[in-house]
Amino acid sequence: MQGFYFEDLSVGQSAELTRTATDEAIRMFAQVSGDVNPVHLDEAFAAQTSFGGRVAHGLLAASYVSAVVGDRLPGPGTVYLTQSLRFRRPVRVGDEVTAKVTVKALHPGRGHVTLTTICTVGGKTVLDGEALVAAPRRPA
Amino acid sequence: MQGFYFEDLSVGQSAELTRTATDEAIRMFAQVSGDVNPVHLDEAFAAQTSFGGRVAHGLLAASYVSAVVGDRLPGPGTVYLTQSLRFRRPVRVGDEVTAKVTVKALHPGRGHVTLTTICTVGGKTVLDGEALVAAPRRPA
Repeated sequence: MQGFYFEDLSVGQSAELTRTATDEAIRMFAQVSGDVNPVHLDEAFAAQTSFGGRVAHGLLAASYVSAVVGDRLPGPGTVYLTQSLRFRRPVRVGDEVTAKVTVKALHPGRGHVTLTTICTVGGKTVLDGEALVAAPRRPA
Repeated sequence: MQGFYFEDLSVGQSAELTRTATDEAIRMFAQVSGDVNPVHLDEAFAAQTSFGGRVAHGLLAASYVSAVVGDRLPGPGTVYLTQSLRFRRPVRVGDEVTAKVTVKALHPGRGHVTLTTICTVGGKTVLDGEALVAAPRRPA
C-alpha cells in the first residue's frame, strides 16, 4: 500500500479500484451496519419495489470510494473531512463497481484536497459526489 | 422492522439507533470495503498519526445513518437519493455511536423527504449531514 504526500499531488491525478458487490459483501455490510432493509436482503420483497430486485446498500459503493481515498489517493494518513454522495442508479448483486477519485483542487495552506468521487458499473454512473480531505504532509 | 409511508411523516419526527464500533466491526468494514488503511487496523501506525490511535472508518458511522433511514425512518422501501457527510471527530474502537435522523422537510409532489442526519459519541457530534430520500407512498 502506497500513498502520496500533499506535496506530491497534482490536479487531475486519479486512482481507482474495482470490487464486486457480491451477495456475501451485501450480507456482511448488513451485519456491520445494522441495515437489514429487505430491499437489500430479500429477493421476494425487493421484487415488489421500484428496484424490481435486490440492490446493494448505497453506502457499500461509497465505502469503495473511501477505500481509494484511504489506501491510494492520497492514501494512508489521510483524514476525511467531508463527502457528498448522490445515488444515481442501483447497484445490483454481482455488479462490478469501479470507484474512481480525481484531484479537483489543492488548498496548500491547510494541506486540504478537493476530490471528485464517482462509482460506475459497466460505464454508467451509479454514485457521484465530492470529498474534502486533509492529506499527509511530507515530513520536513 | 416497521417504517412509515410518506403520508405518515411529519417535520420534526425522528428515529435513532446506537451501535458499538467494535474491533470486529471495524475489521469487517475493512474487509467489505477494501479500505485497509492502517489508521483503522494497526495500532502502532495509528499511534503515530494525528489521531494518536486507531479510529473507525468514517463510513462505518455513516452506515449507521443508512440503517436508521432504511430500517426505521422512513424505513423499508425508502430510496436514498443524496447524503452529505461532515466528519467532525474520530470514532474510536469501542465507541458507542448513536445515529439520529430527523425529518427536516417534506416534498409532497415527488414523495421526497429531507432528513438531518447526525452521529454522536457521548453527546459529542462525530458526523453530521443531510439526506434526501424518496419515501414509499401509501398504496391507493
